[in-house]
Formats: sequence, C-alpha cells, structure tokens
Amino acid sequence: MALGEFDIIRRYFSDIVAADEDIICGVGDDAAVIAIDAERALVVAADTCVIGVHFPLQTPAYAIGFKSLAVNLSDMAAMGVQPRWCTLALNLPPQYRQADWLAEFQRGFATLAKQHAVSLIGGDTCGADQLSVTVQIIGIARSDQIVYRSGAKPGDAIYVSGELGTAAFALRRLQAEADLPDTVLDSLYQPQPQVTTGQSLAGKVHAMIDISDGLLADLQHILNASGVGAIIDAEAIPANPLLRQQLGEAELWQCLLAGGDDYQLCFTTDLPEAELGTAVHKIGEITADKGLQITKKDGTQLTPTEYGYQHF
Amino acid sequence: MALGEFDIIRRYFSDIVAADEDIICGVGDDAAVIAIDAERALVVAADTCVIGVHFPLQTPAYAIGFKSLAVNLSDMAAMGVQPRWCTLALNLPPQYRQADWLAEFQRGFATLAKQHAVSLIGGDTCGADQLSVTVQIIGIARSDQIVYRSGAKPGDAIYVSGELGTAAFALRRLQAEADLPDTVLDSLYQPQPQVTTGQSLAGKVHAMIDISDGLLADLQHILNASGVGAIIDAEAIPANPLLRQQLGEAELWQCLLAGGDDYQLCFTTDLPEAELGTAVHKIGEITADKGLQITKKDGTQLTPTEYGYQHF
Repeated sequence: MALGEFDIIRRYFSDIVAADEDIICGVGDDAAVIAIDAERALVVAADTCVIGVHFPLQTPAYAIGFKSLAVNLSDMAAMGVQPRWCTLALNLPPQYRQADWLAEFQRGFATLAKQHAVSLIGGDTCGADQLSVTVQIIGIARSDQIVYRSGAKPGDAIYVSGELGTAAFALRRLQAEADLPDTVLDSLYQPQPQVTTGQSLAGKVHAMIDISDGLLADLQHILNASGVGAIIDAEAIPANPLLRQQLGEAELWQCLLAGGDDYQLCFTTDLPEAELGTAVHKIGEITADKGLQITKKDGTQLTPTEYGYQHF
Repeated sequence: MALGEFDIIRRYFSDIVAADEDIICGVGDDAAVIAIDAERALVVAADTCVIGVHFPLQTPAYAIGFKSLAVNLSDMAAMGVQPRWCTLALNLPPQYRQADWLAEFQRGFATLAKQHAVSLIGGDTCGADQLSVTVQIIGIARSDQIVYRSGAKPGDAIYVSGELGTAAFALRRLQAEADLPDTVLDSLYQPQPQVTTGQSLAGKVHAMIDISDGLLADLQHILNASGVGAIIDAEAIPANPLLRQQLGEAELWQCLLAGGDDYQLCFTTDLPEAELGTAVHKIGEITADKGLQITKKDGTQLTPTEYGYQHF
C-alpha cells in the first residue's frame, strides 16, 4: 500500500537533525524556526504544487504563478510572520517552456510577490514530464512573536479569518463545466494569503494554522500539537451565500469542513473578539477532552466521511 | 521553440525583487546572500533533481537521497559556506511511496546530512507522475568570507579541486550496460560535495563555482560574472586513469570539459598554490581578453561541440 503524506513525513523525515541549539522548531509546524540571535529567528517553509494534483489541468499560467507563491505566503501568515525572500524550483515539460506561458506565470508570481514585498532570490528550472512548482519562503521575526500550532488551551475560542469552502465549491463547478462568478473562481485561482491578518494576530493568539487541507484536517493539527480537543458550531462557519444556495447538505458540509485551498487562518485565543483588531469569525471552542465534535443547532452531530485532503 | 534553462531564469525570474537593502546577492550565483546583521549573512540555494533527467531510471533509492542533498551542499561549498539547514520537497509517484524505497532514500539523505551536520527542518511531500526532489539549503557565514563568481582577475590561476569527468564516464558505461568499479559508480551515485575544501578556500580565492554542468559551462559563468576570459591547459585537467585508458579522444574531452555531475570546485586566485592549504590542480589562467581557449601541449586547440549541459 502506498503510504500517506503525513505518515511519510513522520516516519522518515522527522529526525534528520544535527545537534543544533539554534533550531527552535523543526519539521511539524507550518514553518521551521531557527534562532539567528537572542531576539530574532528565521522562519522557513517550502510547498510544492503539482499540475493535476493541486491544479486542474486547465488552470491558467497566471493562476499557477500566483497560487504557488500564495500557498507559501500562507504558511508565513500562519506563523504570524512577514515573508521576505523566496526561491523557486520549476519543473517544466516542453509545452510550458514557451514565452507565452512563462510570461503569464511570471506575471502571476510577480504580482503577488510585489503585493507583499517578497523578493525572488534564487532557484532552479529543469525539464520534466509533469509541471511542478516548489517555492521556499523565508522570513525573519522576533522570536517571541512567532505563533505555533501547539499553544491552544482549553476554554480558548476558535476563530477563522474568512469564508471557507469557496475554493472547493469553485473546483466542483469547474469540473462540472458550470458557469462561475469571477470572484468565486478567484478564490480557487488567486487565493489571498492572510499575511497582514496573521501578523496582526501575532502576540494575541495561542495557536494558529492556515487552512490548506480543510478545516477539520488542519484544526486537528492544532489539537494534536496542543494535546486538546474542540467543539465546532457547524452553522457558525462563514460561507459564501452561493454555497448554501447551490449545494446539497452533504456537499455543503464537505466544502466547509474538508474543502481546503481557501488559505484562511484558523486560530485560538482567550482574548475577547473586540481585542483581536481584525474581522474574524468564532466557530467553536477548545476543550480539555481530546476529540473533535461538530454540532448543529438542532443538536445533531456531523460525522463527515472526508475529514481532510491528502495530496496523494 | 522551447526555451533553455538560463534563458528562462534571465528573462523571467531575475527581477522579482522588492526594495530590500538586505539582499547582497540575488539570482545569478550558486546561492543567494542576505545580510542578517552587520557581520553575518544568510546563504540560500535550491536545486531540483528529476528522475529520467538528473537520475537514470535505475538509480538506487539510496543514491537519489544522497545525491539530491549533495548537489545542494555543493552550492554551499562553492560559496565557501558551511551548510546548516535544509528543506525537502518530494514529488512521489505511487511506486515510490513504499516503505522499502523511502527507507533507502532516507538513509542516503540522512547519511550525507549527518556527515555535514545538516538538519532537515521542513518540506513537503505530494503525489506526482514523476519522481522529483527539490532541496533548499541554508547556511550562515561571515559576509566578508563569502566567495562569488564575480571576483576573477586577469593573471589569476584557475584550479579545480579534484578529478573531472568520472561521473560522466560512469553514466556512459552504465548506459552501455558495461561493468564498472564501485569507486567509479560512486562518483555518479554518491558525489562528495567539497564543503570542507570550499570553506578552507574562503578568504583565499577570488571566484569559485561548483562544477555541476561541466567545466566549460561552469567556468564560463565565472568569466561572464567577472568580465574576463581564460586559457585552459587541457592536459592539466585531472582525470581518473580509467578514462584515458577506456575512452577515445573525443569522448575523453567531452567527459572532462562538459561532463558535469562531479561536484568538484573550480576557483581562481593569485595566491601561490602552497598557500591554498588543500590539494588542488592548476588547469589554466584568467585573461583580460574575454573568451575561453582550450589548448593542448602540441599547440592545437579543442573546440568541443558540447560546451556544457542544460537540464532540458
């Protein structure tokens, strides 16, 4: 049986570690954290996007450029850190090594890089049978301002930074060749990494993650790392009204709970909402009892069959 | 027409740069250099290896793990910098997501990481149709000890750190299904990045690069960056005696001049060889006249048709 993503990382790649006192956090959070002096740390993440896995085959070049950087900026957002520099490794089949495609890819990548003042400092391009894009992102932050997955405490409220499920909804509609408003398609093709929100929350929240694989899968990472559980109020999850109009009950919950690809932040804190200083949506509470319950107002519990998305 | 590797980088990916005074060196050397304080800089490189491009299909998992890290350590060696931390992005088709393959890949990667006290701090694994491995490597060094491609001066002697062409010879023999001594096969499967040599040369040399694409292609990068030329004494290039025994004239020069994949260092300096403190081989001289001449003792010049290797 082929092994799953998290199994592989845990079994094979968690303990290639030298005796190195500068490593504050290695494999297992949205980014690694390395002390560079008494006050500051380097924050480093890497993410790959593969055509046919992360991108439908028809994805425009602009969107591939934009999104392959966006998913990495989102990792920095989840740590509460300003991204600064990135490298880009491009595996390019011949049909992508054309001026038109490359110019559009570059435009998407550069547009988002400029928005966040991120510089491309290096990388590699090479031939391949399948298009894939690996970006590594680096930031520097005050060590005491960096937010991890592991700090959630019983009694914390759980928040998300915006609507969930829109990207998953857009993907379903695209696969069904249905029409879509541009704003909905943009949530799939040009997700906005919540870098400013993430930084504004640093110092105010106990734990944070970006929702790339789906709310339940990503929240579960916080719960595991913090040794706690959670109760989620399903109907409090913010969603684009189109989803409630156009999706059946089962599809709606799948998009909201397991959709992924929205790159909103999920975080926990004991501060009152008014002190967070940014528009957020409370969706539940951290519990001392481990386990993750999703309840509806009528008292029923949701037990979705798909609790997340692995990139295999 | 599909564009070449260096064209793509120059045209599309050289100027995605924010106003950032901390960037000492961006795209265009073996690694990027970022100031982190008045004395120290971050040194960052990323390289991808793709099965069927950088690795023959029959390459053992151990060798893939070892070499995908080795090529990145070699970039740090070329800057004269001690590598410290890396991330790993693995694109894994189902046949590679098996415990046997992964354990061997891990063993190769971890063996070399341990030799150089490098820690794996993060990364990504995902499904794909083709195996590819992207490693990003990070080091920290004193800014005034970092060696670039751009410092070569007319009159400098040109050196290499060891035998060239062995990996290319091994690949030819492998493709011809001929027998090979293990030591020769190791030069292809387990190239030893010259990290210690590179660091020992920092502060003593004007320009340095690692030979990944072939001597002429990589030396040409030094010449372009430094605005100089070179004369190479072809017969001074160190080679494993097997190459001279078993290869015809044309094949021999192709392996030595354009073979690549040996990951030896090429550097230029005006110091006497005795002061370099490491075993090196003088192969030529930097000239004010631009252009690259390769001469033999009998006065003839070599004009190889293949001056390097691009990964397309």
